[in-house]
This record gives sequence, structure tokens and C-alpha cells, in this order.
Amino acid sequence: MKLNAAVLGATGMVGQRFVKMLSESNWFEVECISASKRTAGTRYRDNALGFEYSDDILDMTIEDTTKNILKDHDIDIAFSAIPADIAGKVEADLAEKVAVATNSAAHRMDDDVPLLIPEVNPDHLGLIDVQRKKGWEGSLVTNPNCSTIVMVLSLKPLYDAFGIKDIKVATMQAVSGAGFTGVSSMGILDNVIPYIGNEEHKMQTEPKKLLGSLEGGKIIDASFNVTALCTRVPVIDGHTESIFVELESDPTADEFTEALRTFKGLPQELNLPSAPKNPIEIRPVPQPRMHRDLGNGMAVTAGRIEKVAPNKFKYVVMGHNTIRGAVGASILNAELMAEKKYL
Amino acid sequence: MKLNAAVLGATGMVGQRFVKMLSESNWFEVECISASKRTAGTRYRDNALGFEYSDDILDMTIEDTTKNILKDHDIDIAFSAIPADIAGKVEADLAEKVAVATNSAAHRMDDDVPLLIPEVNPDHLGLIDVQRKKGWEGSLVTNPNCSTIVMVLSLKPLYDAFGIKDIKVATMQAVSGAGFTGVSSMGILDNVIPYIGNEEHKMQTEPKKLLGSLEGGKIIDASFNVTALCTRVPVIDGHTESIFVELESDPTADEFTEALRTFKGLPQELNLPSAPKNPIEIRPVPQPRMHRDLGNGMAVTAGRIEKVAPNKFKYVVMGHNTIRGAVGASILNAELMAEKKYL
Amino acid sequence: MKLNAAVLGATGMVGQRFVKMLSESNWFEVECISASKRTAGTRYRDNALGFEYSDDILDMTIEDTTKNILKDHDIDIAFSAIPADIAGKVEADLAEKVAVATNSAAHRMDDDVPLLIPEVNPDHLGLIDVQRKKGWEGSLVTNPNCSTIVMVLSLKPLYDAFGIKDIKVATMQAVSGAGFTGVSSMGILDNVIPYIGNEEHKMQTEPKKLLGSLEGGKIIDASFNVTALCTRVPVIDGHTESIFVELESDPTADEFTEALRTFKGLPQELNLPSAPKNPIEIRPVPQPRMHRDLGNGMAVTAGRIEKVAPNKFKYVVMGHNTIRGAVGASILNAELMAEKKYL
Amino acid sequence: MKLNAAVLGATGMVGQRFVKMLSESNWFEVECISASKRTAGTRYRDNALGFEYSDDILDMTIEDTTKNILKDHDIDIAFSAIPADIAGKVEADLAEKVAVATNSAAHRMDDDVPLLIPEVNPDHLGLIDVQRKKGWEGSLVTNPNCSTIVMVLSLKPLYDAFGIKDIKVATMQAVSGAGFTGVSSMGILDNVIPYIGNEEHKMQTEPKKLLGSLEGGKIIDASFNVTALCTRVPVIDGHTESIFVELESDPTADEFTEALRTFKGLPQELNLPSAPKNPIEIRPVPQPRMHRDLGNGMAVTAGRIEKVAPNKFKYVVMGHNTIRGAVGASILNAELMAEKKYL
Repeated sequence: MKLNAAVLGATGMVGQRFVKMLSESNWFEVECISASKRTAGTRYRDNALGFEYSDDILDMTIEDTTKNILKDHDIDIAFSAIPADIAGKVEADLAEKVAVATNSAAHRMDDDVPLLIPEVNPDHLGLIDVQRKKGWEGSLVTNPNCSTIVMVLSLKPLYDAFGIKDIKVATMQAVSGAGFTGVSSMGILDNVIPYIGNEEHKMQTEPKKLLGSLEGGKIIDASFNVTALCTRVPVIDGHTESIFVELESDPTADEFTEALRTFKGLPQELNLPSAPKNPIEIRPVPQPRMHRDLGNGMAVTAGRIEKVAPNKFKYVVMGHNTIRGAVGASILNAELMAEKKYL
Repeated sequence: MKLNAAVLGATGMVGQRFVKMLSESNWFEVECISASKRTAGTRYRDNALGFEYSDDILDMTIEDTTKNILKDHDIDIAFSAIPADIAGKVEADLAEKVAVATNSAAHRMDDDVPLLIPEVNPDHLGLIDVQRKKGWEGSLVTNPNCSTIVMVLSLKPLYDAFGIKDIKVATMQAVSGAGFTGVSSMGILDNVIPYIGNEEHKMQTEPKKLLGSLEGGKIIDASFNVTALCTRVPVIDGHTESIFVELESDPTADEFTEALRTFKGLPQELNLPSAPKNPIEIRPVPQPRMHRDLGNGMAVTAGRIEKVAPNKFKYVVMGHNTIRGAVGASILNAELMAEKKYL
Repeated sequence: MKLNAAVLGATGMVGQRFVKMLSESNWFEVECISASKRTAGTRYRDNALGFEYSDDILDMTIEDTTKNILKDHDIDIAFSAIPADIAGKVEADLAEKVAVATNSAAHRMDDDVPLLIPEVNPDHLGLIDVQRKKGWEGSLVTNPNCSTIVMVLSLKPLYDAFGIKDIKVATMQAVSGAGFTGVSSMGILDNVIPYIGNEEHKMQTEPKKLLGSLEGGKIIDASFNVTALCTRVPVIDGHTESIFVELESDPTADEFTEALRTFKGLPQELNLPSAPKNPIEIRPVPQPRMHRDLGNGMAVTAGRIEKVAPNKFKYVVMGHNTIRGAVGASILNAELMAEKKYL
Repeated sequence: MKLNAAVLGATGMVGQRFVKMLSESNWFEVECISASKRTAGTRYRDNALGFEYSDDILDMTIEDTTKNILKDHDIDIAFSAIPADIAGKVEADLAEKVAVATNSAAHRMDDDVPLLIPEVNPDHLGLIDVQRKKGWEGSLVTNPNCSTIVMVLSLKPLYDAFGIKDIKVATMQAVSGAGFTGVSSMGILDNVIPYIGNEEHKMQTEPKKLLGSLEGGKIIDASFNVTALCTRVPVIDGHTESIFVELESDPTADEFTEALRTFKGLPQELNLPSAPKNPIEIRPVPQPRMHRDLGNGMAVTAGRIEKVAPNKFKYVVMGHNTIRGAVGASILNAELMAEKKYL
């Protein structure tokens, strides 16, 4: 018996990948797709150009995201890829009734909303109990920004084993992160663009919540600093990040590498369907076109690890931004919610 | 009266640009071009595919770099673009008789060889006097690695005004830096490659010599640390660098920006032909395709300047790697040598 | 004394290049720039991101294209880069009073409007006399579609020397042809898109008018057939075209090549400022990044010429689509109009 | 029971994909890999950078292609990806003893060697009987050039249904077709290169053999003409071809499209493991990044079909050059050989 899923914002880059990946999932069934008023009422066939779909999916009619989809559908969980500006209200309304797993930024930093990476902070799901106390029958769980996820997956074993004092990160981010039309070819061919709106703020704040601790129904932020400088590069999928990290303790380069290589989280233990065997693959030179599909796009790849001074390391981590960094992230969140009986 | 120039290693990417730029110079005349045994004896026409040249240039016959070119030509200065492995001996032999301005890495860190950026450390030319003392009639002057030049031009006004304690830099470097065939299209299309052999070592050591002081015929290195992580990206020309810098003092972001914007060096004062009006242009978002040709490729562009904590800043600097970072660098060095009566 | 120019639609890709090239022209002065209501009233500085401009230009205030710019400005000629859908009326209204040189498609096929390439059909300017007869004080001259111009420049000497029966052309067109945001990076990275709306129709009809003859105030179309298949490729500037041509007569490959190489037109004879020395450069393998700037972007480059059967040839021609194919084309048209006393 | 396979030339682009695809095949087992003397004796792990492999494969030792691999291995079939210049002798020697399926061009046009596309001319396998008559215990079967395969798959149903008089084709070919280092990034970024050595000759001759008929142990070539103009474009995988075809008869555009859409060949009938369900997929705008993986890379995609005159059509066809156009082609050939008891 599969769980019934709705996909909100199903015509954008992230939304289309939600539909694609959910249509191939063993745990979820695409029951309803919605988008803006502009496309509502048309068939998915006429709006979905990014992937190849089955005819069943292509024949579905798009509904209006702002209408109550629960009236006509029996939904177990809604996956949201709607723009941050309207996600705020739509997702909160929906969460009163049903589980919502969202990739939108609107509620990520809300006190009672888990910002979740199942390998990193599965216990933060406990915030759903706080949500229930204010009367919600449903729940709202968010995944972090794509660049944040890729980085924090690599930080988690370092944080646990060695402690983290300071992070400086320079990203090289794929164009898919800006949606189908976010980056023009005139902008990016033979070019890099060292500016991505809001991205640096997200990378500088989200990791502290993710690696924070849940105490008495509240998240206490981790105390390290993050400084980020974000750049768009002419790559389709896969964010690459050059990281300079200062640790609390002083491991060898081998100990540092082994901490990453041997890392496993709760999804691996529970054998969740979207969980990669190894959350972190080690390669000498991580590269987006070569490694973004490792673990079906759910593993990140780390390498170029070098100790530069006592407590100080540089390394590179790369991950698939629309799978591990967005759609797969939300689906893995939902799988954990199902396993933990929150659906 | 133009100065007679030889170009050594004239068939590679850098060598071809030497020929191109010198053929358009008002101070130098291309008198002789040389390359490896493989092409020696053929016409330049049959080996030079990277640029459009005049027929005069195309009709020149390539000579053998390892032979004594001074026997047949009256040369005032030799510009060298020969591979580091053979540059060591060839350049040293030549410098005994004639002035040599080289882009090769072989002698950059030699005690008595100036590693020169005319806007940064023109006084290091004084090392030529040390060379003369050991009997050389000629001289040997090197320009730094391309990534180093772009970064250090932006560091110079910061170093003078505020002092520098620590630098972390993540580069995004153009494919032209690896020569015509150094980076395959299968390697770089839809990809970035976070590894460039030897590059990080050069970026971590050369800046300390460049910003060091010449005292008693020796360079005393500057004392800050540099940590570099270097990546190749699908850009033709223009290295972009994300920099995290910790200063000795604590300027405002405006003071930091003004130090860069108002910076002038000796080449600007002397009005050398290759000197850009402003060594550092300020733009909100520096980008290689948009800004690499500013100042005829001799200006670097800085931007995205942000203060992140007391004494700590992040910013981006970008410059044309084969002009400002190589060929134009050597030619500007030679112009300064000419002006200072070393030719 | 320069002629006063207005640039209509000055914020798009073509409009910005108009402003850039006219600001560097010796014959024209940018007196007025206009765009849509959305940007009217703002400074050019805040809307022009594609090129580097002087402060004089950046400080100009954008006017509303749909308002009467002649009221406030003394204009000798208006250059138009406005979208085809509104160009129809705006340009016709303006042409009643003043000379208009347009890159828009709206009026290209009008009976009394010259579709002009000065090297190809300068006598078609005679249609201005027809325009004058219907009471216009001004005039309206159009340049062809970018792909058409590149191809027809190479067809002209073939048509004159050997006659043309049939043309099949497959294009590989640069992304700049679609404007700043016309082609998304998600669409074109690691991809080609063999569809460009309306392009094939233009390439199949415009050449027949261009190589037609003006008789009794009317253009009699040339009688050959053109079949076009148009593709977008990941190139910034420069349209490359693979052409299969059947001629009326049977030259050798050398005669075919010489016809192209030695071709000169009226602009060369009159020495117009934008006229390239050779309208057609011959290279073994024409390529956009290598050759698009030949003749300051006003020469096209032909090569790969091969005779495949009696009367039948294949060859490649490439030209800069936004210079020779659009902005430079209009400016050269205007220069011819000035020389012929139509301004 | 799988068949034992050797891969000759296993370190190049095509060779590596052979190893990758055969290691995932249900019919074949990689028993032996060989390459040039330079890498012989080393492990595959140290030479194979293009794909991710299992440890079993990575631990294999590379043998010397020019030595007799049959001495130490029990081989059922050798897959060859060796360079054309040495393939001539090596493959002929080997074929005396064992079945050889090759992607090399050396023997493609030999009178007694099948140039095979299983959907197009499976009966040409009958030439193996001619090979046997001259004493070979093994056999030699070739697949066509990558561009030829993509085109001829689309020509086959047209040839059978309507007859073909003339073809003009302009290709846009992926860089993988030139191997890992064949096309430099400096050559192809922001560029197209309208020249590929030998390619046009192959495209102009191979289709006539492929669509020829086997009569009395000899192939009688088909009689249409092909004129090809080949261009390299910045695409990783997937050759796109703009085709102008003149038919013997005069179908409607719908009949033309249906002939392509409904086409099935013998591999589909026999349900061979590598056979795509539909050899030709129809899409409005075929594009390499979108469609190259259809049918696991073994389907070609056609579209943009338009009737331009009686008997005359234009259309686009695109296919994965290293799968359908090379490695998958050879493997499908071998599957047909196995099914037909030639192994």
C-alpha cells in the first residue's frame, strides 16, 4: 500500500523532479499535482518539459495550488516546491490538516519547524510534537537549502568527532539550482557569476540550526561561524564547494578522511528506500559530471582533503543539488516521517 | 626605435599571445621566434592557430630554442614561454648575455631573481644588481603564476593600508591557463575540476615573496599565511577568485573598497604603454566574460566586498589570466626594465 | 558634424549594442534612447548590463518609445531594436517624419520598404522614392534577419557569377540571437536545440527579395528555392551555416572560392566607416570564436568549400550575428543612406 | 551461462564504455581486457577514469593487445575499440580463430565483412559464411561510424516505404566521438568546429553498403547519393543531424512520420537484451541532453519533420554516439550473432 502524495508547485524545476522521482517510488503514489492559476486546469503533458514521464502522469490535470486540494483528494503527504513568497501561507494552512514536506525556504527557520537532514539531525523531528500541541493535525518538515545540505552532510561526522570552530566556504553552483529559466545562457556561457541572491545568508545560518541540539522543544544553535561566498558556474547539476574548516581538536588527515568515509546515519540503519549506502563517497577529485549520480544522486562526494595547519583543513565536497539538495532530500524526510509514524 | 625581442616557446598558448601582443607593441619588435626541435625550421604560419597575425609574422621561420639565438640576431630582450622543465637551463644560460623576461616558473623563487609585478614590488628589480655581481651581462626577471598575480594585485593596497594576517582563497580558473590542449572538452564540459597540479603551492608561496621587502640584496618574505584551493571551470579566459582575508587592522567596508579603487602603482605614474589606467576596477559582481578585457586585459576587477567580522572580509577578484596573468605581465615587466635602463 | 541618432528599444540585447556601437561611431551621436514604459524615466545606468559604457551614456534618461521623441529632440535618424509586435506601428508613424533604420522584422517584406544589405542590393534604396511619393518626409529601411545576412553575403558573388538554383542550409546559431534571456542555460548547456521560431521562414523568403531586382518601383523576387533547418547551439556570438548549393553553371572549386574571396560591394568602394575591407574572409575551417570579430565583426568567414557534383557545392559560412547580422547591419545601412543623401 | 568477452583497446573512451556496458550485461562476461604496450601489465584501476566500475573490474590486469590473448583465455567473442591504424592486422588475425565485433573503421568496407545494424540489414550477417569459406574459424563483424548509424536507422523505414534518391546531411556531433582527449576545451568552448577528419567520407559511403542488398555473397550498394557536412559542437554525448531527403515517392508528412514511429526490426522481434523497444522515438524537437538516453541510449529520436516540396522532406535525427553509435551497436551486433549461432 503506497502513501498518497500531492506535489505542490509541480511545473517548476524542483516540482517536476518531485513528480518524476515520486512516480518511481515504492512508498509514494502521485495522487494530485498542483501549480499556479496560470496552468491550473491544463494537463501535465502541456507543462512538463524537463523529464520523460509515463502517460499516466502526463494525463493528470493540474490543480490550483491555492485551492483546498484536500477536499477532492485523500492525501497522506504534500510535497511542496512552491515559491518562498507564497509558500509561507499555503504550507502553514495545509499543515494544520496534513503532513507537508517542503523544499521552500519560508518556514525553515521557524522555531517549531524541523530543518531536517535524516542523516544529520533525525531527532529534530521531535518538533512535530510541538506543532501538534498548537493544534495541527498535520505537520511541516523542511529540508535545507541545496548548498547547505551538501556541506552539512560532510560537516556532521567532523562535528561529532572533532568539533567545529569556523568554516569558510566558496561554492560553485549548478544552474539547475535557479530553476528552468533562472540563469540565462547569455549570463553563464564562458562565464562564472559570483553572486546568488540570499544564498550566502542561508549557508551561514542553516548549518547552525541543523547541527544544533533539541532541548525542551527548542533548537539550541551550534556555535561555530560560517562565512560563504557563492558562485554560479556553467554546470547543469551538482554543487561543488571548496571548504576551509577549523576544528576544535587536531586529527590527522587520515582520521579526518576516515570520519567522512565511514559515516552512516539513521536512514542507512533503517534502510530507507532513498538512503544511499554511503552518505559520503570519497574520491581524489570530486567533480559534478563524474560523481553527482553516486548513490542515485543521494550521496555527496568529498575529496582533496589536506591538513594545512594544526586543527585546520581544506577539502572539497560536491553533491547533486536537485536530488540530494532538494527533491531527494524532501522524499527522504518523508520516508523518515513515515517510518517514525508521523504520516 | 623599437627594442628587438625574441619569443622563446612561441607556439604554445602563452607564446602565441606573446607574438600577438608584441607585434602590436610600440616599444618592441618581434625579431626572432623559437620553439622545440619538432617545429624548428617550419614557418610560423603552420604552427600558430590561436590568433590572427600579420603576414610578416606568419612568414617568420621558427628557430630551435635550445640553440644560441644570439648568434644570428641582435636581441635586446628575450620573452620566454618555455616549459618549466627546460626553462631552468635555457633561461639561465641566456641571462648571462641578455635580458630575459619569463613567464616560466623555473626561477621564480631563486634568491637573486625578481618575482615582479610592477604595481606591487618594482623595487625588487634591484636584484638585477645582484645578478650583475655574479657576472651576468644580461638579467632574468620573472612574473608570478597567473592566479597569484590576480590575487596579489588586490592584496597590495590592503597590505599597505591595513596589514594582512591570513588569506584563504578558492579559485575558479579558465582553461586557457593549461595551454591549448591542457584541458580536454570531455573533462570540463558541464563540469568543474577542483584540482590543478602545483597551482596551490605557487599561490601559497609566491605572494609572500611578492609582498616581501628587499633588504641588503635579499627578499625578506611577508609573514601572512595563504591557503589555496584551486579549481578549473569551463571559462576560456579569466581567473575568478573567492577570497577570505583577515587584516591586521579594522577598516570599514568603504575604506577597504576605496583602498582598492584608488590604487595606483609605478607603471601608472610612469605611464608605461601596457599599464592600465586603474590596476583594480570595482564592479558589483566581477565576471570573466564581462570584465576580463578591462584595461586591455591588464586591469583586475574586484567586487562582492563584504565585512564579515572585525578585521575580516570576503571579496572576489577576477583577471585575464593570459594577459594580466602571463603575457601582459611579462611585457609590463620588460617596459619597466626598459624605463629603468636595464635593457 | 555628427548626425543625431535615437535608439529605440535601447535596453534589449540589440538595443544595447546599438548604443555601444553608435557611441563609438564617427558619423553618429546618441541623442536619445527609448524603451518600454517599464524602464522609461530611469537612467540607462540602471538598465544596461551587457556592455561597458561611458558615463555620458550611463547618465542618459530612458524615454518612452511609444511617445513622440521628435517633440523634444532634433533627430536625423532613429535606429530601432523594438520587438516586432509593436515595431509595426511605431516605426511606420516615425518614418512619416524621419529616417528609420530598423532591425525589426515587422516591415521587412513590405513592398515599398528596402530590405537592405549595402554590399548586396544598394539599389533597393530606390524604394525610398516610392515611400516619399506616399507623403513620407522620412523613410524606413530594414536589415534582414541575422542568419539571412550571413548567408546572403556569401550568396551574392555566387549569384552574380554562376546563378543559383537551389539552397539547403542548416544553421548553428548563437544564443545572443535570442536576446539576453531568450535561451536559458538549462536549455542549452551540453545541448543543441534544433528549433528557432519563425527563423526558417525568414531564411526561406528574405534571400529572394534581397537578390531580387528593383524594376519600376517594385522588387521582383529571385527565383531560387531555399530550405532551412535552424538550430540553437551553445555559442555566445556567431552564426555558423552549413550550406548545400546548386548553381546554374559549373565553376571549379577554385573559381567558386575566388568569387567569394575577391568580392567587394559599394560600401567598400565608398569606404563607409563600418564597411569591412573584405566582406568575405576565407579560412580553412570557419569558427565563431576564432573569426566572428574579423573586420570588426562586419566580415563573414567562408570555408570548407567542396564541389560535390557538377553545379553542386557544399561550404560553411559564419558571421557575427549581433554585429554583421543586426546592429552593424543597420548602421551600415544608415551610412549608405547618409552617403546617398537620404538623411 | 554467460559468453566470455575480451575487450581490445579497453582504456580509450569507447573501450571503457565497452567494459562498463559488458560488465552490466546478462549475456556477456568480461574475461580479458587489453590495451597498448604502454599500459599493459598495469591494473585497470589505474587507467580507467571515465566511468565508475566494480572492484572486480578495477582489479583486472591489462594485457597487451598485440599479443595472443587466446593463449591464456577462453574467449567467445572479442569486442574491439582499437585505433583504425592497428586494427587492420590485429582484428584480421584474431578473426581467424574467434568472433570479433569491432567499432573500428579498418574493415568496414571489406567485401566479405558485414557492416551491420541489426535493425537495418541483419541478413548481411550471411557474409560470415563467405569468411568461413576462406578458412576462418572465427568471424569479423563491424558496426558503422556513429553518425552513420544514427542517420541510417532513420533512413531504413523511409528507404523501404518510399525509396530514397538523395540525402544532404549537416551534423552537430558530440565531443565524446573524438575520445577523451580528441577535442580540447580551448577548441570547443563558445565555439563550433565545422570539420571532422574522414567523417564526411564515412557518412557518404557507409549508408550505401548498409542499405545495399546481399546477393550471391556480395553486397550491391544502394544507389542514392549522400552529401555530408560535419561539425563538432560543445555537447558531451549525442549526435544531432539536420537532414534534407529526396524520396522516390511522395508520402504525406503524416505517412513519413508514421513510417519512422512504427518501425521495428529483427532485434525487437527477437527481443535481444540491448534492443530498444522503439528504434526511433518521435519528439517535436529532438535534443541530445533530453533524449540521448531514451531506450537506454539505443533509440534514436527524430522530429522537426516537414514536407518542403513534392518528394522532399527535412527532419532532424539525434542519437547517443557512444552507445547507439558505437558500444551498444557492437554489443547488439554480438547479441544477434549469438542468437544466430555464430558464437
